[in-house]
Amino acid sequence: MKQVKIALLGIGRIGKIHFRNISQQFSNASVVAVSDPQYDEESFKKEFGSVFFSKDPEEAVAHAEVNAVLVCTPTSSHASLVEAVAKQGKHIFCEKPLDLSLERTASLVKIVKEANVKLMLGFNRRFDPDFMQAKKSVSEKRIGNVQIVKITSRDPGLPPIDYIKNSGGLFMDMAIHDFDMARYIMGKKVVEVFSKGLVLVDKDVAAEGDVDTALTTLIFEDGTYAVIDNSRKAAYGYDQRLEIFGDEGMIQVDNNLHHRNIISDAKGIHHALPLDFFMDRYAKSYLKEMELFIDALVKDKEMPVSGEDGLEATRIAFAAKTSMQEGRPVKLSRITSQ
Amino acid sequence: MKQVKIALLGIGRIGKIHFRNISQQFSNASVVAVSDPQYDEESFKKEFGSVFFSKDPEEAVAHAEVNAVLVCTPTSSHASLVEAVAKQGKHIFCEKPLDLSLERTASLVKIVKEANVKLMLGFNRRFDPDFMQAKKSVSEKRIGNVQIVKITSRDPGLPPIDYIKNSGGLFMDMAIHDFDMARYIMGKKVVEVFSKGLVLVDKDVAAEGDVDTALTTLIFEDGTYAVIDNSRKAAYGYDQRLEIFGDEGMIQVDNNLHHRNIISDAKGIHHALPLDFFMDRYAKSYLKEMELFIDALVKDKEMPVSGEDGLEATRIAFAAKTSMQEGRPVKLSRITSQ
Amino acid sequence: MKQVKIALLGIGRIGKIHFRNISQQFSNASVVAVSDPQYDEESFKKEFGSVFFSKDPEEAVAHAEVNAVLVCTPTSSHASLVEAVAKQGKHIFCEKPLDLSLERTASLVKIVKEANVKLMLGFNRRFDPDFMQAKKSVSEKRIGNVQIVKITSRDPGLPPIDYIKNSGGLFMDMAIHDFDMARYIMGKKVVEVFSKGLVLVDKDVAAEGDVDTALTTLIFEDGTYAVIDNSRKAAYGYDQRLEIFGDEGMIQVDNNLHHRNIISDAKGIHHALPLDFFMDRYAKSYLKEMELFIDALVKDKEMPVSGEDGLEATRIAFAAKTSMQEGRPVKLSRITSQ
Amino acid sequence: MKQVKIALLGIGRIGKIHFRNISQQFSNASVVAVSDPQYDEESFKKEFGSVFFSKDPEEAVAHAEVNAVLVCTPTSSHASLVEAVAKQGKHIFCEKPLDLSLERTASLVKIVKEANVKLMLGFNRRFDPDFMQAKKSVSEKRIGNVQIVKITSRDPGLPPIDYIKNSGGLFMDMAIHDFDMARYIMGKKVVEVFSKGLVLVDKDVAAEGDVDTALTTLIFEDGTYAVIDNSRKAAYGYDQRLEIFGDEGMIQVDNNLHHRNIISDAKGIHHALPLDFFMDRYAKSYLKEMELFIDALVKDKEMPVSGEDGLEATRIAFAAKTSMQEGRPVKLSRITSQ
Repeated sequence: MKQVKIALLGIGRIGKIHFRNISQQFSNASVVAVSDPQYDEESFKKEFGSVFFSKDPEEAVAHAEVNAVLVCTPTSSHASLVEAVAKQGKHIFCEKPLDLSLERTASLVKIVKEANVKLMLGFNRRFDPDFMQAKKSVSEKRIGNVQIVKITSRDPGLPPIDYIKNSGGLFMDMAIHDFDMARYIMGKKVVEVFSKGLVLVDKDVAAEGDVDTALTTLIFEDGTYAVIDNSRKAAYGYDQRLEIFGDEGMIQVDNNLHHRNIISDAKGIHHALPLDFFMDRYAKSYLKEMELFIDALVKDKEMPVSGEDGLEATRIAFAAKTSMQEGRPVKLSRITSQ
Repeated sequence: MKQVKIALLGIGRIGKIHFRNISQQFSNASVVAVSDPQYDEESFKKEFGSVFFSKDPEEAVAHAEVNAVLVCTPTSSHASLVEAVAKQGKHIFCEKPLDLSLERTASLVKIVKEANVKLMLGFNRRFDPDFMQAKKSVSEKRIGNVQIVKITSRDPGLPPIDYIKNSGGLFMDMAIHDFDMARYIMGKKVVEVFSKGLVLVDKDVAAEGDVDTALTTLIFEDGTYAVIDNSRKAAYGYDQRLEIFGDEGMIQVDNNLHHRNIISDAKGIHHALPLDFFMDRYAKSYLKEMELFIDALVKDKEMPVSGEDGLEATRIAFAAKTSMQEGRPVKLSRITSQ
Repeated sequence: MKQVKIALLGIGRIGKIHFRNISQQFSNASVVAVSDPQYDEESFKKEFGSVFFSKDPEEAVAHAEVNAVLVCTPTSSHASLVEAVAKQGKHIFCEKPLDLSLERTASLVKIVKEANVKLMLGFNRRFDPDFMQAKKSVSEKRIGNVQIVKITSRDPGLPPIDYIKNSGGLFMDMAIHDFDMARYIMGKKVVEVFSKGLVLVDKDVAAEGDVDTALTTLIFEDGTYAVIDNSRKAAYGYDQRLEIFGDEGMIQVDNNLHHRNIISDAKGIHHALPLDFFMDRYAKSYLKEMELFIDALVKDKEMPVSGEDGLEATRIAFAAKTSMQEGRPVKLSRITSQ
Repeated sequence: MKQVKIALLGIGRIGKIHFRNISQQFSNASVVAVSDPQYDEESFKKEFGSVFFSKDPEEAVAHAEVNAVLVCTPTSSHASLVEAVAKQGKHIFCEKPLDLSLERTASLVKIVKEANVKLMLGFNRRFDPDFMQAKKSVSEKRIGNVQIVKITSRDPGLPPIDYIKNSGGLFMDMAIHDFDMARYIMGKKVVEVFSKGLVLVDKDVAAEGDVDTALTTLIFEDGTYAVIDNSRKAAYGYDQRLEIFGDEGMIQVDNNLHHRNIISDAKGIHHALPLDFFMDRYAKSYLKEMELFIDALVKDKEMPVSGEDGLEATRIAFAAKTSMQEGRPVKLSRITSQ
């Protein structure tokens, strides 16, 4: 493939980021078709210009020039769209998760494989420059053999309860990024999961059968582990840190602050807060993941995040939920898709 | 009590610190008798001057002026000495742990109570100025209601295998400080313990039936938790950090570095390593705990660390070991001293 | 003006940045003509697409649609181009400096004024987000009345001697940014300049009659001062820091590091080096200055950096050189353009 | 000399620190005599125990056992006491400055030399562990050849005007420490001084003919320089920093904060303020300077700060004052003691 001609399905918050990044930054890729039920042709053209538009995603996918599709619609439509696109023989970038059901996720991975198309899952955090740097240092054995990964992942605030309701729960919606990060950094197989969860931010979350605070221990095949600390609300903003401990040292990845001014006054020495909106905090990772998606297509390489990666993270999320409910560790081998 | 007249039992590494601190820093306390089987009267006087000395601890305790006793002997003799001192009606400061046996620990707490003497356990880390500051901020609700405590506690290097053999194991010897720290910061009851442990530093540790790396989750009565990350060896030195997360903020306690010079050169920006010897790192906490012990005696106040605190930390250590062996969380209520 | 239609004169390193930023980021501005003697029409179109191109800047300026011109050519041609553009009645953005001669600089400011066009000087550092934040805090009296500004401004390495030869010297070429920064932060008139300079990096610099290391004290009208510390070579990279001291506190602006990974190993705790290429370090400031230039045209507002600002910085640079040569402080009033 | 037997003249704030340090920390030194006009024998013994006491310093110096004398009295009596002690053939530690007059200072240095006794000046900051570490790194060529030293030295608050009146002025009283520090770090001869000073903290300072804010440039014999930034009042406390720039790197010495807790909340990320009382900030340096004084006597070595060091710092202070008054740089060779 020389030029990646993209159909973008869904042009909401994330879809817009990809649209803008592709339009401005890549000479070997372009968006040639867009679908989104929230727009009609007139309102779309007014905002985004003269790209082919249809309310119907199938029409966008079917556009003759299109050879790759970005699925940026709500989660509930991911599965059917990914299946449809695969069957058209076009390559796929899909925002996480593929589906809230484990069975459906597994079957999609299989379908995509059989269709012989490439699939990349949008675990964008892997492509944050700071986290990539950490992974690079780990790969270069800069801290020897890695023994522990500690992930702090706290949101700046609770999403609307309506969002929570359809999210699949904290593990499936939020911690799944961290489960993927732990696998990415460690490069090992998770075999066991122990999770505790509770409601400390807002009682309405409990009414939805969900939690807003959780602690998860992942055990890898060699007995080493990851600890993931999640909260839906940190008073000081979006807290996204990593600490990796190896037998020759430690890597810490700090938060990304609003600015580098330090003010000293009679009350203390004050630094800026972390960037608190995920689209600012991860702006570079959205760009980088698209660069790598395009690059994998143009150079016919393996995708940097596969459907299997998505499936594994989903299995861990299910194990975490089960562990929390049962009050004990859960072997990942129990979580099967049949 | 106006003047605290102390018998010091055992003048090894820790005993010397207390001896020096008491001699130099307190006008209302003095060491009036010392016992240590490693010295004879001549060698003792040569090194420490003209204080009453006996190889026999009972003679030191029985010294007419003595009204308080510091037990700084090897762990195996703590129990019998504490019991003997209590029966003499003299107050006690004892290095941790009271005993490696839970039953004996429980009975000592009872004996001391019945003897109506005061007992302070040497959980010195509580008295580190940085950790005291953190506790103070928590008490003042500076970060609202505390939800999670994360403790990083890594030694600069493995102690000799002979030490490991008699230590009671990583949980009883090393993590017990962190179990106490978690209880101290949270001020709540621990109800459940989940521990994973493995050998990553030195295989000889496994031969002793011990681990050198561990991760422990403590669940408090209200569902909130602590995570404790232990290693017997951090390549960069003694790693003693704390992170406390509450609904209005976070407190982080950083390591105490060798100095505050920062060198920038062609390879990077370099800061000094953490203080790597526990007696340097916690020099101020040894002094502070003695100040508070003396103060509690002089003002007839409650001890800042009680025998019950020691018993609880010991129960948690037993639960941690059990959890690791059983591969599942253990309710603390299972760990009883009968 | 609704749409800013720009002629870009010179599409070297800086010109390319502006070309790309304008093309990608602004809906109310576009580059409609480009000139550069280094390209011919074919090579230009191949690299930059179908914009009007001429080797002759006058043709680009004269393009019917053009209402604003960016002067990004070598310094020696700034003056004649600015004058020509002003006489065409089109607005001007000019990279610093307007000219190496004080008289010519002063006359250009006058010419521009008489032509009644807007002129912005490219003191891009004012628009770095961290420095803008510092200026904002100063304006909000966050540290009370400002007493001292300390600027550290060290390049990652010496430019080629050929560059040095035509640069106008360290004060005119490099420190001039810092002179402008000091004026910008303080918002006061400089009345006296004392500079020391010497050659510590490369003796060839001395052969050109220039220095590579300098220290300048600026005295403001109220007796307060700025200190500027310049070096052409810092082993650890591009060092661009600011410290502002006021009667109610201090603002420090730290360097912008390559990443936020911290590695601790047996040798120390290591942070990344500062960004070492000026186009990376100041990427956001180039974008922001263009945004503000366009905004000032569209809304018919005052330019955020005026020709007078350029003239003042140039006068300070002359005073600095004179002070260094005479070995004593120089009143700025001595530096006149007649 | 095997045992240093000390007469302490003046037991005010500083005298008390030395008294306590010598009593507690050194086995080869003791205070055997004390004089202070503020005490009588009874009040002295009550507070300090059974050391020989006299209101008359000559009696303390003359005490048969005494072989070294600490001069910790007000500045106005330093000269006569140092002279008297030297004539008794006893060694001297004297708090800075020897005298406010340059002539008297020079003559004292001569007298001491002729008396063949050792003299150490109390430039205690040289012995701060962080600054010693910086000096060590410089000596080890860790940053190559040193080009610039930048010293920030700001007090937490203005002393009483009565103190100012008798202090000899900001340069002689406060900046003199920094002049010595610059010489110590650089290890080169100062040849020229340029100072600006003004009153920004309190107008009453102006009424005393003094300044409360100053900036000094020192030029060393090879053209390299130091910049010293002084203020009598920093809102955020005692600001004592150092930055040393060399051709292979930079050393920064940060402030010493009250504690290492970092609190993140909705308003920012907050660190503790610097230690704000000089006796806390420099506690270790007072101990270290005494250790080195005693060591130099016991081992018959050169003193780490000589009378000549005191004289040079005093000459620089005079040059700084002259420069400020004349509004131009002053060659140090102009400042002579005849």
